[in-house]
Amino acid sequence: MSSRVLSRTNATMPAVGLGIWKIPKASCADVVYEAIKIGYRLIDGACDYGNEKEAGEGVRRAIKDGIVKREGIFITTKLWNTFHAHDHAKALAKKQLEDWGLDYFNLFLVHFPISLAYVDPSHRYPAEWFGDDHKVHLQNTPLHETWGAMEELVDEGLAKNIGLCNVQGSLLLDVLRYARIPPQVLQIEIHPYLTQEPLVKLAQLHGIAVTAYSSFGPASYIELSMDRGAASLFAHDVVTSISKAKSKTPGQILLAWALARNLAVIPKSTAHSRLVENLEATDVQLSAEEVKRISDLNLNLRLNDPVDIDPRLGIWA
Amino acid sequence: MSSRVLSRTNATMPAVGLGIWKIPKASCADVVYEAIKIGYRLIDGACDYGNEKEAGEGVRRAIKDGIVKREGIFITTKLWNTFHAHDHAKALAKKQLEDWGLDYFNLFLVHFPISLAYVDPSHRYPAEWFGDDHKVHLQNTPLHETWGAMEELVDEGLAKNIGLCNVQGSLLLDVLRYARIPPQVLQIEIHPYLTQEPLVKLAQLHGIAVTAYSSFGPASYIELSMDRGAASLFAHDVVTSISKAKSKTPGQILLAWALARNLAVIPKSTAHSRLVENLEATDVQLSAEEVKRISDLNLNLRLNDPVDIDPRLGIWA
Repeated sequence: MSSRVLSRTNATMPAVGLGIWKIPKASCADVVYEAIKIGYRLIDGACDYGNEKEAGEGVRRAIKDGIVKREGIFITTKLWNTFHAHDHAKALAKKQLEDWGLDYFNLFLVHFPISLAYVDPSHRYPAEWFGDDHKVHLQNTPLHETWGAMEELVDEGLAKNIGLCNVQGSLLLDVLRYARIPPQVLQIEIHPYLTQEPLVKLAQLHGIAVTAYSSFGPASYIELSMDRGAASLFAHDVVTSISKAKSKTPGQILLAWALARNLAVIPKSTAHSRLVENLEATDVQLSAEEVKRISDLNLNLRLNDPVDIDPRLGIWA
Repeated sequence: MSSRVLSRTNATMPAVGLGIWKIPKASCADVVYEAIKIGYRLIDGACDYGNEKEAGEGVRRAIKDGIVKREGIFITTKLWNTFHAHDHAKALAKKQLEDWGLDYFNLFLVHFPISLAYVDPSHRYPAEWFGDDHKVHLQNTPLHETWGAMEELVDEGLAKNIGLCNVQGSLLLDVLRYARIPPQVLQIEIHPYLTQEPLVKLAQLHGIAVTAYSSFGPASYIELSMDRGAASLFAHDVVTSISKAKSKTPGQILLAWALARNLAVIPKSTAHSRLVENLEATDVQLSAEEVKRISDLNLNLRLNDPVDIDPRLGIWA
């Protein structure tokens, strides 16, 4: 199985995982179980996705049924914005482990470099972006405080590896200046309309593995009415022509493009055939010229930008 | 005189200043003196420009000759990358005050969110980007340590206002989370080929005044052979047509475009006529439609990017 080796621990992170954003609670346990049965060895979750208990149920069922051992599967999850204060971050990680029913995460990521006012889990969980008054409330917790808590989770064995999501170059470099345990993974939006070459290059140069999310571009956002009018990548000439030439699906071409750039991917699907198709993207070899043709579709089109939620959240400005 | 009001101190920062990057030592005192005589009330220097002593000589001569009082002129300078450690930052600011022959700076800026290995001023000054071995040596001083030193310079009255240069949105937001004294000014490269709308909007929303550098775009870099092949803005149809219609020079149109966006500008010139011309850009009024026509020239073309010096310095990735 194709994988990425993480700095510091030399852990192997599968190159294709199952992203569980938007998988409904009701089906999440079954989808995760099914995915593991098919051969997935990485599940990518988050507090914010609201389905960690169910995902954990699927993982534990697969372990119980002997399909996989705990040490054979890589579980990633993410710290939400309302838990950036040191003590909240640590307490949340422990709650998340309880929800999954696990002793440790393979990878724990800071979901956004955004600190929002604490919301007690007994009050509302996950807290998402807004307070009870439907407004965004900022909290002045600097990232270095949050990162200190992340490092302690490693010290305590609760997270084997730690990393960041949605972080620009200059902030990543600042974390590298103070980190006792440097980030090992950076997870960012990457697809042919947002190729992010400079940030990928910077992270990889500093020994940080990069995971692409939203590999299918606008298609991932249509159900949220957030597709921003960009043409579907599945139907784009460049993608379909390579797809036909190789007798692979457009989705596989999009994933293979990311894999060829040495990225990891975490496509979401709930359908058996698509789960299989996505996992088999590792079998698709693109030439350097094909990679370039796809990369040339870049529009710097960002689909997931918190500035759309509140103009003060310009983390990509 | 057109000016920008700074948060916290309500200091007025002139909207047009003289930038002294690349003004040779030999002529710097005279150019600064001449500029003040013409009416300039802001001089924008930096440790790295290597001409602070001479600039200070020009300022002091103008004060001595009764052209201006100290309180009537706004002096900006910048902390260099090799002095990011707390004690080095404070010592350097004091050395810079000595070089200028002043008791305080009106504005002290962190030049780059980049920390390089310390070079003692007695060994080499300014230290620029490279060590004695012609290599770039990173130093792990996080920005929050440097910012703490900047705040102490305010406490001690050595800097009336403090700010940042060359900082992206996510890093700016992180500084705002921990700053006891928030940055009051952000100085970044802005011209019609790099309009930076999201970052300008974010900074202004958070009450931070924005100064544009390299207002003339590629023209500022031709002498460094760093123009990157982009067509001169002075000769661009959109700029020249507005220039002709208004009977103003293309340079004035470029400055007026920035001023209309509520930016401050710091054009450099050494010629009397150009110094006058630049200062008088405040008299040029552009319509919203003219501003938009110029803004539409945006190419996201960055001329000053430290990643060109060393790929590890991806502060704009």
